[in-house]
Amino acid sequence: QIRDAVVALLRDGPLLGVRVVVTAGPTREPIDPVRFITNRSSGKMGYALAAALAQMGAEVTLVSGPTALATPPGVNRIDVETAAQMLDATRAEAAGAQILIGAAAVADYRLHTPSAHKIKKKTDTLELSLVKNPDILCELRRAYPDLFIVGFAAETERLAEHARDKLARKQLDLIAANWVGEGRAFERDDNALHVFWNGGERELTQKPKADLARELAMLIAERFRSRTGA
Amino acid sequence: QIRDAVVALLRDGPLLGVRVVVTAGPTREPIDPVRFITNRSSGKMGYALAAALAQMGAEVTLVSGPTALATPPGVNRIDVETAAQMLDATRAEAAGAQILIGAAAVADYRLHTPSAHKIKKKTDTLELSLVKNPDILCELRRAYPDLFIVGFAAETERLAEHARDKLARKQLDLIAANWVGEGRAFERDDNALHVFWNGGERELTQKPKADLARELAMLIAERFRSRTGA
Repeated sequence: QIRDAVVALLRDGPLLGVRVVVTAGPTREPIDPVRFITNRSSGKMGYALAAALAQMGAEVTLVSGPTALATPPGVNRIDVETAAQMLDATRAEAAGAQILIGAAAVADYRLHTPSAHKIKKKTDTLELSLVKNPDILCELRRAYPDLFIVGFAAETERLAEHARDKLARKQLDLIAANWVGEGRAFERDDNALHVFWNGGERELTQKPKADLARELAMLIAERFRSRTGA
Repeated sequence: QIRDAVVALLRDGPLLGVRVVVTAGPTREPIDPVRFITNRSSGKMGYALAAALAQMGAEVTLVSGPTALATPPGVNRIDVETAAQMLDATRAEAAGAQILIGAAAVADYRLHTPSAHKIKKKTDTLELSLVKNPDILCELRRAYPDLFIVGFAAETERLAEHARDKLARKQLDLIAANWVGEGRAFERDDNALHVFWNGGERELTQKPKADLARELAMLIAERFRSRTGA
């Protein structure tokens, strides 16, 4: 039954002409000209999703933090470094888009005042004062109430509870959650996802990220069509 | 005259059988299971140096932080993540070595207490308390008084003054200094170095890192032989 639906969707070119913005990779928040705060995101999931969506006929723009990955065929890529740059680029690109997928591991905090010169190791201790970055998906929801927004949740504990909470709080249309820490997900080539939406959920079992991305892209197309009644 | 000296050194296999430890790349200091502090080092200079030294007959061990680079032919590579891990591995490897080259961009500070769980973005601000990491070259000098130690200095201001100060303070045998910030050196494929030692200095002009590494390796061999009277 699921297989029939998948085959039907594929035959119709499930996202033909739909404009999708995907954020991917980590961001870097400068401490000084050489040091920065970042995270273990490789960008693989976002890039694989962008590739899968393009194969399904979507017009995909990838807003990417620093990664070692090649741009997928047919995908338009915009490189950014900080969360603030990612927000600006995503807001601009989402203006004419129908779907936004926030696969980037955006830094939650940035330095209050990055140093213009390299900090010398003069003192035995150093206090870094961070301030919260704007939440890209919340900002985009506010700017574009009708955008179909997909979020991710990387959790080390109580996955379903945290994911459901994030879905509601950020007014997302779909959230894909996975376990992290101790060798899971980040910097790995395979992954598993538990996907939640209002009134439903689906488990996507452990598999290579490229295969998982295709499954998730199909689910996104299904939920997007269901919401828009297409 | 310099060319004659270079040719003579090459003919003799200038570092045949000499054991060299090279540190390279950035280190990562964890904030929590997914976030960390790091820096813009690509590891290219250290890897190029390791390759050049191996070509000159040295037995090279590369103690490397996370990079996207391939291990040079004939080089033994040990992967580490934090500064503490790099210190331990370097101390162990330097036990039987004659030369240590500290090309890694080791984090000067680490989190006092990394979080075991991913930090939630509950508060508008976040204070990170850092403590100084042990200085790898100072620790190695203390452990091995006769080791020929080469350091690097990446500076955004007053390069010669800072490099000379570091040479004396850390009791190095040689220091290679370069300008950083605003697109210089880090993550670039070419670079320039100003090399200082007790009673001398030499400028190595802007060129691809692989070529620069060969020049620096020759200079290291020259100074090492001069010191040991070989």
